[in-house]
Amino acid sequence: MELHVQKYGGSSVADVDKIKNVARRIVETADQGNQVVAVVSALGDTTDELIELAEEVSNIRPKREMDLLMSTGEVISSALLAMAVADEGKDARALIAHQLGIKTDFTHTKARILNIDDQRLRQELEAGNIVIAAGFQGITEEEDVTTLGRGGSDTTAVALAAALDADECEIYTDVDGVFTANPQVVKGAHKIDRISPEEMLELASLGAEVLQVRAVEFAWKYNVKLHVRSSFNDQIGTIITGSDEDMEDVEVRAVTSDDDQTRFTVLDVPDKPGMAGKIFGALADADINVDMIVQSSPVHKEGANDISFTVSRTDSAEALEILDELVETGCGSELTTDDAISKVSVVGSGMRNHPGVAQKLFNALGGAGINIETISTSEIKISVLVSEKQSDEAVQILHDVYEL
Amino acid sequence: MELHVQKYGGSSVADVDKIKNVARRIVETADQGNQVVAVVSALGDTTDELIELAEEVSNIRPKREMDLLMSTGEVISSALLAMAVADEGKDARALIAHQLGIKTDFTHTKARILNIDDQRLRQELEAGNIVIAAGFQGITEEEDVTTLGRGGSDTTAVALAAALDADECEIYTDVDGVFTANPQVVKGAHKIDRISPEEMLELASLGAEVLQVRAVEFAWKYNVKLHVRSSFNDQIGTIITGSDEDMEDVEVRAVTSDDDQTRFTVLDVPDKPGMAGKIFGALADADINVDMIVQSSPVHKEGANDISFTVSRTDSAEALEILDELVETGCGSELTTDDAISKVSVVGSGMRNHPGVAQKLFNALGGAGINIETISTSEIKISVLVSEKQSDEAVQILHDVYEL
Repeated sequence: MELHVQKYGGSSVADVDKIKNVARRIVETADQGNQVVAVVSALGDTTDELIELAEEVSNIRPKREMDLLMSTGEVISSALLAMAVADEGKDARALIAHQLGIKTDFTHTKARILNIDDQRLRQELEAGNIVIAAGFQGITEEEDVTTLGRGGSDTTAVALAAALDADECEIYTDVDGVFTANPQVVKGAHKIDRISPEEMLELASLGAEVLQVRAVEFAWKYNVKLHVRSSFNDQIGTIITGSDEDMEDVEVRAVTSDDDQTRFTVLDVPDKPGMAGKIFGALADADINVDMIVQSSPVHKEGANDISFTVSRTDSAEALEILDELVETGCGSELTTDDAISKVSVVGSGMRNHPGVAQKLFNALGGAGINIETISTSEIKISVLVSEKQSDEAVQILHDVYEL
Repeated sequence: MELHVQKYGGSSVADVDKIKNVARRIVETADQGNQVVAVVSALGDTTDELIELAEEVSNIRPKREMDLLMSTGEVISSALLAMAVADEGKDARALIAHQLGIKTDFTHTKARILNIDDQRLRQELEAGNIVIAAGFQGITEEEDVTTLGRGGSDTTAVALAAALDADECEIYTDVDGVFTANPQVVKGAHKIDRISPEEMLELASLGAEVLQVRAVEFAWKYNVKLHVRSSFNDQIGTIITGSDEDMEDVEVRAVTSDDDQTRFTVLDVPDKPGMAGKIFGALADADINVDMIVQSSPVHKEGANDISFTVSRTDSAEALEILDELVETGCGSELTTDDAISKVSVVGSGMRNHPGVAQKLFNALGGAGINIETISTSEIKISVLVSEKQSDEAVQILHDVYEL
């Protein structure tokens, strides 16, 4: 008997018919002789609606209470899905945070999993029950409910698959898998059959919304094979696996863009030791990730640099507040922000062995008259900052030039 | 320092402004130097909406999953109310089933409280926090969430007040207290200042929706003084207390009617030992309460009786199914039902010492041409079944005749 962990995203359970469809899929998997743990996200836009309600009620919104509030979306969907499975003639048990034994730290709204006490889970499976697990939530040592951040149900699924040593971990979503580029933007974009966790991690970090970054890290660390696929058809999706057999070593696996970025520039940062550290330290203390850093020393300014970098737009209001205060206390003369930018990236583990990948990128974009404002690279990715209105064109050109 | 338990019903937190109003009330109580535990129901119609959603998704609706689903209404309202209190400048902690330590039996959808482990509650109060407790919910030995039945938040409040030995247990609602009759129906109906738990228990059982029956039982048993009052003004409401000092011993304290009843009549029940027991036993097994029982032996029928009784309309579908089956297997010749009836009752602990209360009732209704179909009495109440369309008139007449 195999044990399958399946995760169904909010779009897969967005309405009554879709919930019933998911229930049938779960029962089908069980009928093939498998044990099933199905992790479910909140129905459609429930989480956003709960956040709106909180914003109406409170300006302060303590994170502990926000977590408790947001966790209810997944409690509701897990209870409903368990009922729908019952209608298909199988015994199902919805389990929520304190029952799943997902112990986290105290970082409310983006808690990290510390360990999993899977006693109750195993007990239900051994009793022959299908388990419907409420995604996105954990519990602290003090029994307070936490949430795992946007997309956290992916992490729930991977963590449970790792703890239970599952044979499969399927991530069901509303697309057919991971694509070489966004098919709504790029002609010729197609599904990727297999991708390494390393590549997937870069893609997820760079704005591909199909999987939460932390889920990919977790899967990589615990060697969980992921299968990203559609809940609306039976096609094989994208397999994310560390074992390289069968996997073609291509220079570029996919092209992606992320418009959800704000660029900050602090002008005239005094050229003294520790100034950059002060800026980035303050942002790091607030848990804000910074990318695409450029420091320039204009010739006409002596003893001062301009420092420019991007942050995700969800963090930009908080970053603005922090940076404003730093500028006021003498860390620079002025602060400018720019939302009309896009980070375009190419990712491929073959880059390591194929020289000339960067060359090709610069030539192609330069030839099309697309100005590259900033560059950042890792071993297996190249990101460039371009103007937001040229972003789609840049992605199409790169998709073509690497023959994806 | 006093400890106050306050309960706010769904209508008191029906919208954002009302939630903020309740938060201010709680903070006011705390500012007077009191510790506060506020028990909250689901916002407005949330519970009904959740039930509707479940009905769309599933025909079976296992009770365990229904409880989990329904409990989210109170989790949402407790989190929101805690946030609103934070905006008023006080530290509040929302606590839900597993944190409140309200241990219940396994009777899902109408669980009974077994005991309360108040460790976490006391810890939060000692830390100077206001506790916002999610009402209506408990947890089994196996850590599954249960609910305490309609109006269960009243019971939560009374149970917590008993466990914590609170100085006050205030039940906030959308009316000014307990009335001598429904003021929307009866001219001259007015608020009752004090009422005994015994009388309140009869009133709650007879359709007065202001308090859950079980909450009154609990308050009586553990000697918790209740104060039913409005969340929309500062007037003193109705005090429910067992200590009789100050309390006038009136023959009738209040008149109430309950249209939410269905009368069943089983015709030609064979006059053999055990037949009635079979019928009422089957209903009791399904946890259906039966009232206003009449057995008649028409002269033209030998060896058979007609048995007639009422059940609450929420149970009537289930009762119909059970009774249909019994009739088919020979417990009677035919089953008839009647929804157009109303149970009108007068309640007063003074009845014990004042003879002639029943006499007055029969004369008054008879004089007005209102036909009494069935009578049932206890030591402190008289209930009569009348036609639904004469119900309001009957209540007004009785309210006048007992000079309330």
